[in-house]
Amino acid sequence: MRVRLLFPTPEIAREFYVPIIYTACRTCYSELEPDEIFRRATSGQVGTAKQQELVKRVIESGHGSTIEHVVFTFAISGVTRTLSHQLVRHRVGVAFDQQSQRYVNYKRPAYMVPGTLEGAEPALRERYVEEMDDALRFYGELLAAGIPGEDARFVMPNATRTNLLMTINLRALIHVSGLRLCTMAQWEIRRLFQLIRHEVFAVSPFLGSFLAPKCVPLGYCDEAGNRDGHCPIRPHKDVVLAAWAEKRDDARRLGRELPTL
Amino acid sequence: MRVRLLFPTPEIAREFYVPIIYTACRTCYSELEPDEIFRRATSGQVGTAKQQELVKRVIESGHGSTIEHVVFTFAISGVTRTLSHQLVRHRVGVAFDQQSQRYVNYKRPAYMVPGTLEGAEPALRERYVEEMDDALRFYGELLAAGIPGEDARFVMPNATRTNLLMTINLRALIHVSGLRLCTMAQWEIRRLFQLIRHEVFAVSPFLGSFLAPKCVPLGYCDEAGNRDGHCPIRPHKDVVLAAWAEKRDDARRLGRELPTL
Amino acid sequence: MRVRLLFPTPEIAREFYVPIIYTACRTCYSELEPDEIFRRATSGQVGTAKQQELVKRVIESGHGSTIEHVVFTFAISGVTRTLSHQLVRHRVGVAFDQQSQRYVNYKRPAYMVPGTLEGAEPALRERYVEEMDDALRFYGELLAAGIPGEDARFVMPNATRTNLLMTINLRALIHVSGLRLCTMAQWEIRRLFQLIRHEVFAVSPFLGSFLAPKCVPLGYCDEAGNRDGHCPIRPHKDVVLAAWAEKRDDARRLGRELPTL
Amino acid sequence: MRVRLLFPTPEIAREFYVPIIYTACRTCYSELEPDEIFRRATSGQVGTAKQQELVKRVIESGHGSTIEHVVFTFAISGVTRTLSHQLVRHRVGVAFDQQSQRYVNYKRPAYMVPGTLEGAEPALRERYVEEMDDALRFYGELLAAGIPGEDARFVMPNATRTNLLMTINLRALIHVSGLRLCTMAQWEIRRLFQLIRHEVFAVSPFLGSFLAPKCVPLGYCDEAGNRDGHCPIRPHKDVVLAAWAEKRDDARRLGRELPTL
Repeated sequence: MRVRLLFPTPEIAREFYVPIIYTACRTCYSELEPDEIFRRATSGQVGTAKQQELVKRVIESGHGSTIEHVVFTFAISGVTRTLSHQLVRHRVGVAFDQQSQRYVNYKRPAYMVPGTLEGAEPALRERYVEEMDDALRFYGELLAAGIPGEDARFVMPNATRTNLLMTINLRALIHVSGLRLCTMAQWEIRRLFQLIRHEVFAVSPFLGSFLAPKCVPLGYCDEAGNRDGHCPIRPHKDVVLAAWAEKRDDARRLGRELPTL
Repeated sequence: MRVRLLFPTPEIAREFYVPIIYTACRTCYSELEPDEIFRRATSGQVGTAKQQELVKRVIESGHGSTIEHVVFTFAISGVTRTLSHQLVRHRVGVAFDQQSQRYVNYKRPAYMVPGTLEGAEPALRERYVEEMDDALRFYGELLAAGIPGEDARFVMPNATRTNLLMTINLRALIHVSGLRLCTMAQWEIRRLFQLIRHEVFAVSPFLGSFLAPKCVPLGYCDEAGNRDGHCPIRPHKDVVLAAWAEKRDDARRLGRELPTL
Repeated sequence: MRVRLLFPTPEIAREFYVPIIYTACRTCYSELEPDEIFRRATSGQVGTAKQQELVKRVIESGHGSTIEHVVFTFAISGVTRTLSHQLVRHRVGVAFDQQSQRYVNYKRPAYMVPGTLEGAEPALRERYVEEMDDALRFYGELLAAGIPGEDARFVMPNATRTNLLMTINLRALIHVSGLRLCTMAQWEIRRLFQLIRHEVFAVSPFLGSFLAPKCVPLGYCDEAGNRDGHCPIRPHKDVVLAAWAEKRDDARRLGRELPTL
Repeated sequence: MRVRLLFPTPEIAREFYVPIIYTACRTCYSELEPDEIFRRATSGQVGTAKQQELVKRVIESGHGSTIEHVVFTFAISGVTRTLSHQLVRHRVGVAFDQQSQRYVNYKRPAYMVPGTLEGAEPALRERYVEEMDDALRFYGELLAAGIPGEDARFVMPNATRTNLLMTINLRALIHVSGLRLCTMAQWEIRRLFQLIRHEVFAVSPFLGSFLAPKCVPLGYCDEAGNRDGHCPIRPHKDVVLAAWAEKRDDARRLGRELPTL
């Protein structure tokens, strides 16, 4: 699996992306026209730190439309069809073009070995490799026998590697990263989003800082599968809400009311 | 492959769907309130024929929002993962839930034999069946060896059957049917939409009548691959536009102008 | 302002909506085909209580696609253009058709008086009524003078009433209700969603029970404007997370670790 | 009304936008990985003319996902609320942030005079100006009297000017321009898209060339309101299809078949 951020470059991210989001935020609340807001932001009249402060506050407030204005284009190579089938279920704020098993007659199809098989006993691992090699060899034989590629691909396993171009706006990227960086996400797609986060950090540490498992902005984990708290990133929702309820009850016993009651 | 329309029933389609679309159309152009328009439509004060006439005209005019108000829910069983990967690329106006190869540990996984292999020479067909049986048997062995289902599925071929529940609004259904009923669409997904059309016809011949290859409403075929006109449903765009250009030139030579010039 | 749920009826909601969502949930995790799951759900083989239990758990888990399969169609009458301009900003899972000020040449345009003006001193209230009457009278005069409706409407105030037909799937309805039932939402749109919730409750108390301000499923309020805790529905996020942090620190002081750390 | 394209610059459009679309197109049909395709496109190994040729062919074929990967961000100033209410109905592939009449307490609200009133008899025009001035003055008085901005705005007319930031991907931009550049579109929104097209042309004549009324790619006009052919851009669908039918019948009479029959 390989991920490369094709767009924006660090220069474009720095010169344009924060000013565009800043302009989106300010346009809603100002009598100034958006091109004037943008001019002030890109000319340095409004400093980067001040822009970032507003953008951070707006993102944290959940005013999501403001971060739909900037997009990131990733070249994704060598992921399995299992991953791509999951990935393209994301529908909003994202565009995909994927290598077509219908139109490409593969000369060198490749496949992935999952970690559990990499680490399995040698006989099982070898059997896996043989089966995958065999399936892809049979694919080639079907093509050679005149079966059209769109039918020959029926024998390709889920493990077969594929490539995609994905463009995603920042709102969708934060949302999807929130789901896929969770430790309970499937390992391959989680790995993909770790690489994606790494790429975004490399062009903009500020924008990259918003890519995190959903528990980070929420402050708690809301996964039913983590009620035992085995994932240490954040405490579970049940625990957090129970802590608050206990504190409230303590205060009531002492004849005090918590300010928010 | 099997398709069953779970919702609406013929009664619901008749009593509600055309009146809802009629209400959507009339709301835009009337001082009447939508619940009054709907009351007139469902009480028979405005007859079905008159409602259908307006709905037909509005659909043909491309005023698409009016037909986003009614949805169709299909149980789709036994299609391949190749089909499902294509199908879920449709993003607008459509909802999917699909049998998860991650969460289901299959006891009886099944696969499809494409027509080109059904009709191939027996040795090749048998080889295909063996390979598919072998791949799914190996899947079971991996499960038995303690490999988690989410990794064992890596060996499942594209031909493996899967199930989906799909709900789609009429606008999206007409759009997607336009693409997938085209004779140049991939055979399995084309077959799926032929079954879908059949199901819709069975509950509402009126609404079903709008499900057609895109060339039907366009009046011409716009597929580059059909420049030779091998598909007889509609003449190619190039031929149609050339006929008009020729007629226009004839008229000019005779000193006449066509009315639309 | 008036809201009427045109679809589904209570019977349709009861007989089909919970079984459809149940089928969506089960299709993901079962080898059973979706039409068989649906048959069991609608034949009573699987009881309503058991279906509702699964649906409730899945909604609370955030597995949102399962509740995109059922839709609600509302006739909305007499809301202002201020409201409609906000409302149509919702884009996903929702369809609108709205009375067109371009195409309708109003004979009886109407307007709304906001509560702050209803309750203002009489002179100001009267002035408001005069201005609105005057603006809509001028609209009529422009039409009479031959100005096309699409330009005459330029003088109509935001207070002018309009009608819409809105169809929204349950996922979008829960999301939008979460935002618009918040006590910090603008009063008119909040009122609209109170009426919408009332209508949904009337056809399905079970499904209506999921329509609540977003703080209810979250367990805390995440509105910056409510840091002072003036809204009593839920305590503020800051207070809740602080209570947990305090409890954790107490535990650490006592040499204990909270289980989720 | 003023439109300024804030992003991309001509340099960014030239260096990245065509290569990104080219990469999207080629990824589908190639065993090459997308970052390698992109490297060849941006390094000059594949020339611009060759890239544009493929992109043009793919756009004309309707393979729309490939042009969802590049976006354009426009500062739109001084349009009416009538326009903005229409504009934000576009939902797919587009992001908006708009000046909020709820949150901005306007010191200098402004309004537009439509052409039909600019050209009307002086008394009517003056009356329009007086009414608009009066409405916006009353808005200021309501604010001064302590009515909150979110209610004071109820008296603002549709003609009131507003600002937006709009980001739209190329697929959506071509689609929306197809509708809004039509001579039958409402004049203000048509003017907006003429300015938008002008801005896109200025940064990329190649990409700008795809912004045209929908009749241009279709080859005919499909507007019912243009059955009389008063708009000269393209002949009406009915005329074009009739010309082809006539030619086909002529051929049949002469015992010949047209190739596509």
